[in-house]
Amino acid sequence: MSSVSSAPTAIKQHRQQFPGLTNKAYFNFGGQGTMPQTALEAIYKAYDHIQQQGPFSARVNDWIRQEADLTRQAIASELNVSAETIALTENVTAGCNIAIWGIDWQPGDRILLTDCEHPGVIAIVKEVARRFRVKVTTCPIAATLNRGNPAAVIEQHLQPTTRLVIVSHLLWNTGQVLPLADIIEVCHNYSQSTRPVYVLVDAAQSAGSLPLNLTGLDPDFYAFTGHKWFCGPAGVGALYIRPEVFADLAPTFVGWRSVQLDSGGMPVNWQPDSRRYEVATTAFPQYAGLRAAIAVHRQWGTPKERYTQICSHSEYLWQQLSQLPQVNCLRATPPEAGLVSFQLNSTISHRQFVEFLEQQNFLLRTLVSPDCIRACVHYFTLPSEIDALVKVIGNL
Amino acid sequence: MSSVSSAPTAIKQHRQQFPGLTNKAYFNFGGQGTMPQTALEAIYKAYDHIQQQGPFSARVNDWIRQEADLTRQAIASELNVSAETIALTENVTAGCNIAIWGIDWQPGDRILLTDCEHPGVIAIVKEVARRFRVKVTTCPIAATLNRGNPAAVIEQHLQPTTRLVIVSHLLWNTGQVLPLADIIEVCHNYSQSTRPVYVLVDAAQSAGSLPLNLTGLDPDFYAFTGHKWFCGPAGVGALYIRPEVFADLAPTFVGWRSVQLDSGGMPVNWQPDSRRYEVATTAFPQYAGLRAAIAVHRQWGTPKERYTQICSHSEYLWQQLSQLPQVNCLRATPPEAGLVSFQLNSTISHRQFVEFLEQQNFLLRTLVSPDCIRACVHYFTLPSEIDALVKVIGNL
Repeated sequence: MSSVSSAPTAIKQHRQQFPGLTNKAYFNFGGQGTMPQTALEAIYKAYDHIQQQGPFSARVNDWIRQEADLTRQAIASELNVSAETIALTENVTAGCNIAIWGIDWQPGDRILLTDCEHPGVIAIVKEVARRFRVKVTTCPIAATLNRGNPAAVIEQHLQPTTRLVIVSHLLWNTGQVLPLADIIEVCHNYSQSTRPVYVLVDAAQSAGSLPLNLTGLDPDFYAFTGHKWFCGPAGVGALYIRPEVFADLAPTFVGWRSVQLDSGGMPVNWQPDSRRYEVATTAFPQYAGLRAAIAVHRQWGTPKERYTQICSHSEYLWQQLSQLPQVNCLRATPPEAGLVSFQLNSTISHRQFVEFLEQQNFLLRTLVSPDCIRACVHYFTLPSEIDALVKVIGNL
Repeated sequence: MSSVSSAPTAIKQHRQQFPGLTNKAYFNFGGQGTMPQTALEAIYKAYDHIQQQGPFSARVNDWIRQEADLTRQAIASELNVSAETIALTENVTAGCNIAIWGIDWQPGDRILLTDCEHPGVIAIVKEVARRFRVKVTTCPIAATLNRGNPAAVIEQHLQPTTRLVIVSHLLWNTGQVLPLADIIEVCHNYSQSTRPVYVLVDAAQSAGSLPLNLTGLDPDFYAFTGHKWFCGPAGVGALYIRPEVFADLAPTFVGWRSVQLDSGGMPVNWQPDSRRYEVATTAFPQYAGLRAAIAVHRQWGTPKERYTQICSHSEYLWQQLSQLPQVNCLRATPPEAGLVSFQLNSTISHRQFVEFLEQQNFLLRTLVSPDCIRACVHYFTLPSEIDALVKVIGNL
């Protein structure tokens, strides 16, 4: 299907479903995806439905429960897991908060994270470390971008007190895909500790861009959002919790969605499944928006077909950038996913150049560590957009 | 202004701004408000703006910061506080979680809450108590609905180890307005403890219905939502934190919105104001929706004028219900706000009757403790809607 759909005419037709693609060359899918019109319309329709039927009524409250169920199912299906393992969240960071705060920390316990994690996640780790007198180790993964073995680096930094390892599946700064199966194996097989070593995966960049089978991969926690590579609305994400560790993760922020009530209206039990990590009222109309976005991608191809197309585009961009004398691509070989990070050999700062690009309607972003520019390509990115971007960079 | 606007023609015109009011008699504002069309349109416009300009771009990211600032300001202005004291949240419960989890609990500390708090809040208290070995006292406030002194009840239940008192400003079940100034005074002046006794107010029912001056009232934490009496979208709420206790409340769930970064992109400080309690990406288009809803109410009248009108309507409903032999109003005197709770002297259950009412397009809800039906009236409720509701109840 992808070979047909990726033909110029078919993909141009597919792209017409995304109003955000019409007036710019968009390379920021790792920041936020462009929403398909059907997702926007599903949201507007949901708002209208609520006003027409409710807002607070038995029929709307039933409908909201169904919407949440359908959304967990749609997400679960993309990750090849059961819906009971999926807790709906507001964003990636919320999922990381749930996982990091929910562990029964003892003073002296240790968290191991890589040197490529997002500042939002680092902020959680710092506060949990302060609150529960937990120690933190940061291991050098950035240096393995072009050579080295990330799983071996992680293994070398495990200690008998390590209880949680935090890694991104797809590094947001350099675009490296970490060998997650190897890392999880190393952590789960670590023999120097009497307690399990949990693996929390920041999946901000991998969910919706890599083909995923969490059931085979077995991370303990996989936190992601719908508004980046899935192109859903900002404000809906999810956390996968491995069934085997479910009982070990206490809910932290809780509310009416987390609990079962007795006949007197008192909370007596957690919900039996991942709903125990969900809190309370949210922007429910957006659930339909995320499902509509996922449906648009499925209509084009399977996760694997989309990933193949993403890699084809990122290799094309990487190859052309690599040929420019004023550009230094961080990777020495073609990217393994949709993120292409590069530096300019120029007196102009990366920030200034990205601002200049935005004025020309090329949307990219800078990163500070390493200091670089990041271009993201999706399966529906056009080779002509890549050509135009390369041309404007080449004219620097 | 309210005397003019509440004239039948003017209020009918005002109500035309709310599509949810056209096809039903709506009495569930304490569950969720009916959104004005301008709020819906502001949300749709914001979604379109993001797709047109971004979604992830310097201009959209600047716009999002402005939207958050404007929304904190609009909320702060309704409560007569400065915007720096307002943290935007997803809902009331999120605000309560921030306050309850953020205290530096020591084993043996005690939380005092009333017997009328929401199960979502009770769930938080139970989990915090378990996690930090904190004790919990529940004091009998429900019994003060028609006689008694709630502040005295709270005072009687304070202990030297009490560090936090949790009360609703306007009780969600019986509609009682607690004497918050007296309660706060009792807690802040409690002399048996060397440490301050904080007061967390669940303002789910009071924000947007009572005229508020938090600067004079001085609660430590005031948690509320925009989607009930303010009639904004579900998914945007806020927490007020009193400036004097700001330094004592640690952020718990955190993310990129909570922190300041150094030049290397590492989180080094909390945000200097209440943004430290905000986490990460949310449904940003909804901010404009909440502001539009607040603007519609302001256009009609001041918070005090709206409250006067609400009380006028609730008194009218209460009076009529009190005259029905098959109805027992929980209150012996007219309500102090928009919630009118009553029981039926009938073999039909409250749930069955509310289902029957919903079929007739009268939207009310049941509560389990006390077992009753709750009707909410807003300033724009029509006397004719009240008449129709009383008639259908009278026909029982």
